[in-house]
Amino acid sequence: MSAVSRILVGVVGPGGGARATDLAAAYELGRLIARAGWVLVTGGRAAGVMEAASRGAHEAGGLTVGILPGEDAAGASAFVHLPVVTGIGQARNNVNVLTARALVACGMGAGTASEVALAIKAGKPVVLLNAGAEAEAFFRSIGGPLVSVADSPPAAVENIGRQLGSAP
Amino acid sequence: MSAVSRILVGVVGPGGGARATDLAAAYELGRLIARAGWVLVTGGRAAGVMEAASRGAHEAGGLTVGILPGEDAAGASAFVHLPVVTGIGQARNNVNVLTARALVACGMGAGTASEVALAIKAGKPVVLLNAGAEAEAFFRSIGGPLVSVADSPPAAVENIGRQLGSAP
Amino acid sequence: MSAVSRILVGVVGPGGGARATDLAAAYELGRLIARAGWVLVTGGRAAGVMEAASRGAHEAGGLTVGILPGEDAAGASAFVHLPVVTGIGQARNNVNVLTARALVACGMGAGTASEVALAIKAGKPVVLLNAGAEAEAFFRSIGGPLVSVADSPPAAVENIGRQLGSAP
Amino acid sequence: MSAVSRILVGVVGPGGGARATDLAAAYELGRLIARAGWVLVTGGRAAGVMEAASRGAHEAGGLTVGILPGEDAAGASAFVHLPVVTGIGQARNNVNVLTARALVACGMGAGTASEVALAIKAGKPVVLLNAGAEAEAFFRSIGGPLVSVADSPPAAVENIGRQLGSAP
Repeated sequence: MSAVSRILVGVVGPGGGARATDLAAAYELGRLIARAGWVLVTGGRAAGVMEAASRGAHEAGGLTVGILPGEDAAGASAFVHLPVVTGIGQARNNVNVLTARALVACGMGAGTASEVALAIKAGKPVVLLNAGAEAEAFFRSIGGPLVSVADSPPAAVENIGRQLGSAP
Repeated sequence: MSAVSRILVGVVGPGGGARATDLAAAYELGRLIARAGWVLVTGGRAAGVMEAASRGAHEAGGLTVGILPGEDAAGASAFVHLPVVTGIGQARNNVNVLTARALVACGMGAGTASEVALAIKAGKPVVLLNAGAEAEAFFRSIGGPLVSVADSPPAAVENIGRQLGSAP
Repeated sequence: MSAVSRILVGVVGPGGGARATDLAAAYELGRLIARAGWVLVTGGRAAGVMEAASRGAHEAGGLTVGILPGEDAAGASAFVHLPVVTGIGQARNNVNVLTARALVACGMGAGTASEVALAIKAGKPVVLLNAGAEAEAFFRSIGGPLVSVADSPPAAVENIGRQLGSAP
Repeated sequence: MSAVSRILVGVVGPGGGARATDLAAAYELGRLIARAGWVLVTGGRAAGVMEAASRGAHEAGGLTVGILPGEDAAGASAFVHLPVVTGIGQARNNVNVLTARALVACGMGAGTASEVALAIKAGKPVVLLNAGAEAEAFFRSIGGPLVSVADSPPAAVENIGRQLGSAP
């Protein structure tokens, strides 16, 4: 990483099926990531955890990157500053993972599970928040020390900071 | 699907970390898929479950497609008839999933977990074999009726046949 | 390449904007590729050069692979035996190129031009047929010996055979 | 496009084979794009036109996004602020194109030609600078009004500004 390159931290989580508690946590994660001086990376859509985290980071003065699945920026969150239009559908989940230095998974669903699994495959630290007992047990069984569980957004962000050696 | 288009069935599972029991099951899955008249799709590499399933299908007279992650066919299994060279790394996991009508996950690991999750996301039936209790509990929790558990290769292939409305 | 791995040869060309002369040439290319014992690879859609070449190969008893851009096989040619569903849009053009050992570009358009350019980038031989004088001059200027021009389908296929060291 | 979303403009051109004149033009393009208030998008590598344009934009106080082909940020330009790590190889050329509202191609080569062709395919305006007579003739023949030719970096950036309806 060069002197000018920013630290990108990912927040992944359900789009359509996000619960109120996931949205509130995602908003807070976005705020805390922005305050830590990191750049937020999400899947970029105007839905669920992606939208809430982007809004949180934007409103806290941070910068937001959205890695979009479609062929244009049509469904992008209004809180994404830098829409990256991949056109590669769900294969873009691996781009989210490779682009982030570390990730927080906020809530759980099929797309989110693919991102946690790809993060483990790529050797990236991933923190689970509101993932549920089954997800925690499973991802710990395949991810070992790469997988942590946090019980709040501040705990998740503090954990990421420790792993990146960069205090939030 | 046209009259000439073949039915492609996927087998996914660990490469390097596959256990002897996963390899034996994958070989048998390949044989049974070939005998059912389906085309086998795997991740194509000369490793683990991909290799064993491709060998099984080849030795039973079947046709094998390998969706490779790299930029050439260098690491392809010697039992892949049709190497598809994607050059898109782990993002190719989604190509495996979209190309297969249904999938069997044989064994479990991070790459395999991403494929099961992407299959659920894409609405494809996926049968778990030797996945372990944590994986079964988790994927059932996020995949509902798309996820089944089988206790043997014949049971897995029979299950796929039922779901495709095409007796193996 | 293993003993069982088949030789895949690509035919690329316009979908919607193909001319009658392109379609006739593509059909003949498909036939000749099948007769040479090679497997045809195209972009897989039920349109233009992809469709005509797939039909030609199918009717000559050959095997056809279609590398589709979308997330399902809905728009696939009825003459594709093995639809590979990438879900990565036009990025799949690079999959066509990497999967084929050599390519014939039949006709010309923006998508076709991207495939010829990516073939040169990947070091694959590419034969231009009905490309037009501007395309020939340009691709020769950037592709050097990788780019040939043929004046008929048999000449194109003979050229590919020479380059692969495998008589058609 | 939302109120907060930035305007991203791409500069594409040769990596290894860039000429001194391409590098000087790319540096100047980067500076002018930054001064116009746009965000620069390139292929992100520490080579040729990508590096020179990123340096120009960085030194003029602008923001730079680099869409990298590999699986990590190892080969990224030191002047890329936001490295997007795609892991999809040359298929990332289509991500560059879809992410940029408009592009300048500075110099010419096989990778660059694929990006110009994909830009035309995607309906994006593209301005050629130092492309050579064969490239100009060819891309005009397939791209019609989407393709312009400029004779200097300021003319290229002015052209982009006119097309985006956003004065540089």
